[in-house]
Amino acid sequence: MTSETADDLGRPLSGWRLRLYTIIFEADTRAGRLFDQALIVAIVASVAVVLADSVHAVSARYGGAFDVLEWAFTLAFTVEYLARLACVRRPWRYATSFFGVVDLLSILPTYFAVLFPEWQSLLDVRILRLLRVFRVLKLAAYLQEYQALGRALVASRRKVLVFLSAVMMIVLVMGTLMYVVEGPANGFTSIPTAVYWAITTMTTVGFGDITPKTDVGRLISSVMMLLGWGTLAVPTGIVTAEMTARRMLRPPTTRTCHECLTEGHAPEADFCMHCGARLHAYHADEPPPGR
Amino acid sequence: MTSETADDLGRPLSGWRLRLYTIIFEADTRAGRLFDQALIVAIVASVAVVLADSVHAVSARYGGAFDVLEWAFTLAFTVEYLARLACVRRPWRYATSFFGVVDLLSILPTYFAVLFPEWQSLLDVRILRLLRVFRVLKLAAYLQEYQALGRALVASRRKVLVFLSAVMMIVLVMGTLMYVVEGPANGFTSIPTAVYWAITTMTTVGFGDITPKTDVGRLISSVMMLLGWGTLAVPTGIVTAEMTARRMLRPPTTRTCHECLTEGHAPEADFCMHCGARLHAYHADEPPPGR
Amino acid sequence: MTSETADDLGRPLSGWRLRLYTIIFEADTRAGRLFDQALIVAIVASVAVVLADSVHAVSARYGGAFDVLEWAFTLAFTVEYLARLACVRRPWRYATSFFGVVDLLSILPTYFAVLFPEWQSLLDVRILRLLRVFRVLKLAAYLQEYQALGRALVASRRKVLVFLSAVMMIVLVMGTLMYVVEGPANGFTSIPTAVYWAITTMTTVGFGDITPKTDVGRLISSVMMLLGWGTLAVPTGIVTAEMTARRMLRPPTTRTCHECLTEGHAPEADFCMHCGARLHAYHADEPPPGR
Amino acid sequence: MTSETADDLGRPLSGWRLRLYTIIFEADTRAGRLFDQALIVAIVASVAVVLADSVHAVSARYGGAFDVLEWAFTLAFTVEYLARLACVRRPWRYATSFFGVVDLLSILPTYFAVLFPEWQSLLDVRILRLLRVFRVLKLAAYLQEYQALGRALVASRRKVLVFLSAVMMIVLVMGTLMYVVEGPANGFTSIPTAVYWAITTMTTVGFGDITPKTDVGRLISSVMMLLGWGTLAVPTGIVTAEMTARRMLRPPTTRTCHECLTEGHAPEADFCMHCGARLHAYHADEPPPGR
Repeated sequence: MTSETADDLGRPLSGWRLRLYTIIFEADTRAGRLFDQALIVAIVASVAVVLADSVHAVSARYGGAFDVLEWAFTLAFTVEYLARLACVRRPWRYATSFFGVVDLLSILPTYFAVLFPEWQSLLDVRILRLLRVFRVLKLAAYLQEYQALGRALVASRRKVLVFLSAVMMIVLVMGTLMYVVEGPANGFTSIPTAVYWAITTMTTVGFGDITPKTDVGRLISSVMMLLGWGTLAVPTGIVTAEMTARRMLRPPTTRTCHECLTEGHAPEADFCMHCGARLHAYHADEPPPGR
Repeated sequence: MTSETADDLGRPLSGWRLRLYTIIFEADTRAGRLFDQALIVAIVASVAVVLADSVHAVSARYGGAFDVLEWAFTLAFTVEYLARLACVRRPWRYATSFFGVVDLLSILPTYFAVLFPEWQSLLDVRILRLLRVFRVLKLAAYLQEYQALGRALVASRRKVLVFLSAVMMIVLVMGTLMYVVEGPANGFTSIPTAVYWAITTMTTVGFGDITPKTDVGRLISSVMMLLGWGTLAVPTGIVTAEMTARRMLRPPTTRTCHECLTEGHAPEADFCMHCGARLHAYHADEPPPGR
Repeated sequence: MTSETADDLGRPLSGWRLRLYTIIFEADTRAGRLFDQALIVAIVASVAVVLADSVHAVSARYGGAFDVLEWAFTLAFTVEYLARLACVRRPWRYATSFFGVVDLLSILPTYFAVLFPEWQSLLDVRILRLLRVFRVLKLAAYLQEYQALGRALVASRRKVLVFLSAVMMIVLVMGTLMYVVEGPANGFTSIPTAVYWAITTMTTVGFGDITPKTDVGRLISSVMMLLGWGTLAVPTGIVTAEMTARRMLRPPTTRTCHECLTEGHAPEADFCMHCGARLHAYHADEPPPGR
Repeated sequence: MTSETADDLGRPLSGWRLRLYTIIFEADTRAGRLFDQALIVAIVASVAVVLADSVHAVSARYGGAFDVLEWAFTLAFTVEYLARLACVRRPWRYATSFFGVVDLLSILPTYFAVLFPEWQSLLDVRILRLLRVFRVLKLAAYLQEYQALGRALVASRRKVLVFLSAVMMIVLVMGTLMYVVEGPANGFTSIPTAVYWAITTMTTVGFGDITPKTDVGRLISSVMMLLGWGTLAVPTGIVTAEMTARRMLRPPTTRTCHECLTEGHAPEADFCMHCGARLHAYHADEPPPGR
């Protein structure tokens, strides 16, 4: 982790806490890297156990072994969690951070499962530990990529919200329209159900559990399908058509930009139209580039 | 609202009408903002009531409360509508504008429902009031965005129409072809039905309520599916492949543009091929930027 | 039509043939435009009749009227076809051109239907006359757009073929794999059937008439689904992520290009990174442009 | 093949081996091209036989002929394989290369089929010989394109892996959530099954073999569907909206770049904002270009 995050949590200054911290939170030493690798293996293995345990045929055979493994994992993750809390200077900060909450959620289910068996399926939450796995594997790179992705999403949040709100309104109005046109007899038993159908149609998923039976209903469905697919196809098609059309209209010379290999610059152009680099002077007998 | 729209409707000059106008149509004063927030809450709540009321299990329990709420909302919206008409100087202009019509449609259904019970589902039209909600929340921003979206759609209308007409022709011809090949016995009972199937296939929705059973039919279906998916995949794939291919062909130097961090400029380039900014002079021993 | 195409078909030089030609093939005169409009109406009406006639409920009622209308249309289109052949100087050229074949196909079915009733569904081929309709409506514009589209497709044909061949190979290999894993008992009755299923899966249509039942089969299906959807999502996501990431990294200045309104140019940039226009000199106290 | 690959395998120096090599591995001579064309025909034909043989109706009729053809193809491909091994100087290198393995897999199945009938479906592996077909048809071009495609994929592998890992995590968490909410009674019999359903939903395939029945389940499904479709629609829509919005904001002049026909340049612009070419001096009365 960067020193920035270290200061957030409070990197200890000396002693056994510092040694523990370098192993758990940092990956510069051999012990640190070994710890991370062991942690990754433990996470993947524990998730696989949860998946396998949910399949009746498998749990019937290996159920006992799975229970033992599950307790082993839980104890190991509990020790790790307590170790993390113990070695940072601001344990409360870690406990309330995203990864701290994930760690806690990872171990609580097993204890709950003993007391409340119906919570047993929450054991998969351990997959969220995989987020930490990416972090330790190639710390800087992945941290940068997920952070970049996160920042990009946050930056575009208004456009996304406006777009999604428009979709929700269309889906609500068209869904209710279908509810009126088709009616409960044809599967559209309520407006929420109709809206669910409208979403499956506009996102082109099309489960088929509810389908329009009347002609008017099928007409409205067609409009929705074209809307949902068109939102993808129309911009893509228009943008590509324009790019190719512009290429069609270029004067047919073989002047090639030596930077980006774009052909067909006008005789009087000085700069590459694609990349802005300065083009070589125009030689009418320049051999066409191979391809 | 901008003074432009105010002039459209006729902003009153003085008196109680002006005070009312500033509350209802403008959001500069505290009363104006409170009014807008209360309106948003009322709109969302009334729509939620409509949705809940359509679910039998819920309406069986709370039907009576919903009716009372619905009348309360209707009366509130009626008062609001009449207030709007009363305080502008050109009430007819408001009544015939998009939002004026939406407001009227929002209250009429409840009155109709008393007289004509089968119109009860049109109460959801209130969602259109949400359009007004976005407007009052972040007036300038959203107004600009929806207007920009609307103008963009209007500007591209010809390309969209040409594209859609091509899709409609393909869907009509292929649909009738399937109608001939598969026949009513396999679900393709008429050409309109076959066209509906063709749309579900080309837009990749694929409900599955009608499916081809013959080999020739499945062959034609495959062509349609590849057409519909390919319209999305082929341009995307080609554009991306070209972008990446061009990056592959760059001379392998580590010259990095300090504006956009694009690597690999040719030794003789003066301007960044990606962003056009002037590159630093070429130093053969420049350390590669960390990544 | 342009004089180019006129020369192709042989524009007559004088007399009744020239007058007929100007009405049918050209839209400069009032008679020519009236003819085109009447033709459009006739085409749309005749196609609507074919569609309506295929719906049993409707044809049971209006079948007789449809037959009469159909013969009227056929006679009208026959007269038009013969008129076209009569007034051009190279009738054979027209008869073998795309539109000439479409015109012939438009009238033959009705005659066939008398002799061979099972060909009755080919009457929809008249929709191909709609292609001519676009041409006469806004001749230059649409002709340019469809021709541009056609040329663009022809120009990219190799990339499209390479891309499609890769898709076909994946679909063939994965389909046969599913045929081996799932077997005829689960619906994968033959390799062609399995390939049909593979296409519905990779193009994300997902009819659901054939679905994998075994765990291994579902695993392979998941891979195919991610392949088909990923071909769309991965490039789109990567391109957008890069665009947004680059915007993240720009130095936070408010220097705005007055051409394209792109913000955030570096203090030392001389040219707009987006459009290459020369930027105004940097004034540190330039007010930020309104959003 | 390029001399680079030739040196990999060891182009023989003289004699019958060199003559054989030029026919099989090279396409410069007439014999070489004939060989390649015959090979293509043999590959396509043998694959078609495998496909046809898997259809019961067809194999019932022509099964005998198919068996004979299959042995003929196998013998031909065996001879070709042995010939390839015989004429290169490093046969082991060829045998372990991708195409060498494909060739071996192409002939082994028939021999296996005699000994182990249940492997009969692996005969389709011959489609992989089609890879070699593309190579011989337009060697340089296709080699370049597939290699370019391969290199592009390898270069982007990290972004792709990060993206896919994010998708897998979402699908695993949401799938298990549905498993908890819907339960085995509604088809979500195990977590792997629920994850399979989540993938069909997020990739918008939507088979419909498993569908949510509860209201909460349908709500979660709606979120997943909007996620899967939105990953495609939101970036496309945002990028296109920005492109069009920028075009909206340009000053309305008719200054047209003579290179790319982009209209609407500002009066003071010197370079085309789209293509960077120098614009003609501004004439206020320039006639708008026809469109």
